[in-house]
Amino acid sequence: MLAKQLRRQQKRVLSLFSCLYVQNEIWNGPYSNDSFPIYAEDIDTGGDASPSTAMLSEVAHRLQITIVGGSIPERSGDRLYNTCCVFGTDGKLKAKHRKIHLFDIDIPGKITFKESNTLTAGENPTIVDTDIGRLGIGICYDIRFQELAVLYAARGAHLLCYPGAFNMTTGPLHWELLQRARAADNQLYVATCSPARDVGAGYVAWGHSTLVGPFGEVLATTEHDEAIVIAEVDYSLIEARRTSLPLERQKRGDLYQLVDVERLNSQSTK
Amino acid sequence: MLAKQLRRQQKRVLSLFSCLYVQNEIWNGPYSNDSFPIYAEDIDTGGDASPSTAMLSEVAHRLQITIVGGSIPERSGDRLYNTCCVFGTDGKLKAKHRKIHLFDIDIPGKITFKESNTLTAGENPTIVDTDIGRLGIGICYDIRFQELAVLYAARGAHLLCYPGAFNMTTGPLHWELLQRARAADNQLYVATCSPARDVGAGYVAWGHSTLVGPFGEVLATTEHDEAIVIAEVDYSLIEARRTSLPLERQKRGDLYQLVDVERLNSQSTK
Repeated sequence: MLAKQLRRQQKRVLSLFSCLYVQNEIWNGPYSNDSFPIYAEDIDTGGDASPSTAMLSEVAHRLQITIVGGSIPERSGDRLYNTCCVFGTDGKLKAKHRKIHLFDIDIPGKITFKESNTLTAGENPTIVDTDIGRLGIGICYDIRFQELAVLYAARGAHLLCYPGAFNMTTGPLHWELLQRARAADNQLYVATCSPARDVGAGYVAWGHSTLVGPFGEVLATTEHDEAIVIAEVDYSLIEARRTSLPLERQKRGDLYQLVDVERLNSQSTK
Repeated sequence: MLAKQLRRQQKRVLSLFSCLYVQNEIWNGPYSNDSFPIYAEDIDTGGDASPSTAMLSEVAHRLQITIVGGSIPERSGDRLYNTCCVFGTDGKLKAKHRKIHLFDIDIPGKITFKESNTLTAGENPTIVDTDIGRLGIGICYDIRFQELAVLYAARGAHLLCYPGAFNMTTGPLHWELLQRARAADNQLYVATCSPARDVGAGYVAWGHSTLVGPFGEVLATTEHDEAIVIAEVDYSLIEARRTSLPLERQKRGDLYQLVDVERLNSQSTK
């Protein structure tokens, strides 16, 4: 009986000290179509073929923390992806998210970029159960698509992690807005991690890594210099917010429904 | 030939001076469950049975403007609705939106309200073609449901109008955030109209009527005192934004799809 109580208490204490570290997008090389093939790693082969993910895996294991490892260019056969690896506290790769929505935009005189020149889009949403809860993963431009966040919320995500690198045009316009909107609309936590701003780089990042709570409130953020944003995540707030504003229950499924195609297909083949 | 050119030019000039007037939520009486039955009008019968909408109709006709007439409590048989009427430049009722998502929230110590104590929820999304473009209508709490805005965008709306009355708790938290999110995510205009703040009222409104552009940018707003917000709407910006960031085309219909149930049903019965 005591042993059972102790185990329960141990689990509680451990959960209090559960840590998540979120890294930024394309952190192992410059963010450019020229560089993606050069810095791409073979994540599935691992070891020497992917030193960046091997390093993250080791850190996760040594510190017993969960890591959402930002993203690196991934080589898989003759294709390249913008890929985020999630490591568990045992250092094992728990999930791999390949950016679903490629960053192809053209704001004349401001910012033009076409990831699809070199990269292939991923084929799956990524939801992963970790020691710090159920995470939904998106990379940068993925955050623009509200449907993905709705899908993750419907699959029970507590926290959406978007490693990203918005730029000097879209950053001030939309970086915080989109995080706060995803959080408030879906009543969950949203964490983002951006590279610091390097004005000498070909692609100048906006910075401003942020944690947003389930009411859309900014809990912790930073400016554009190198920094580590540290904040506590209290999942009980999700329940509190959802009790106050029971949006999920109040949705009008008789008028609109978001279809999660992958889920639908897996159900229909059962 | 000249006649044709003249007609085209006339249409262009007229369109330049097309006006839309948006009124606030429940403007004909206090916002309270006690008052709704007292101030409710029979809109379908019209005339003396609905002096508020008769007045708006007359104004629309005399000024040759389109009016999104905020909302009033509507009596229909033994039911009450929170209803927004849209009048064309000829003064005719073009559409009637009954609030789809009733305002039932409970934030302890802050704000508790239950519209469903007296009101019935509407059964249809409302999209309406007017002289100033295609409008999607929502009332207040309707703005919290991102799916409704996605549905309106898919039906070709240029401008979403949300007469609303957020309060002193949800106003500072979410009023501007939700408008900007709906506009930026769906790349269209969003107009809101709130009552001015009356600190002596039972329900104290946040105010801050606003117009937001298709990049999520606040184009015009006000504080909480009585005011008229005047701004120009340039629909060519919608196309510009959608060309720069072709979100609609970039959505992953193979992974998620918002089903518009009404549309689906109307197609399946064809």
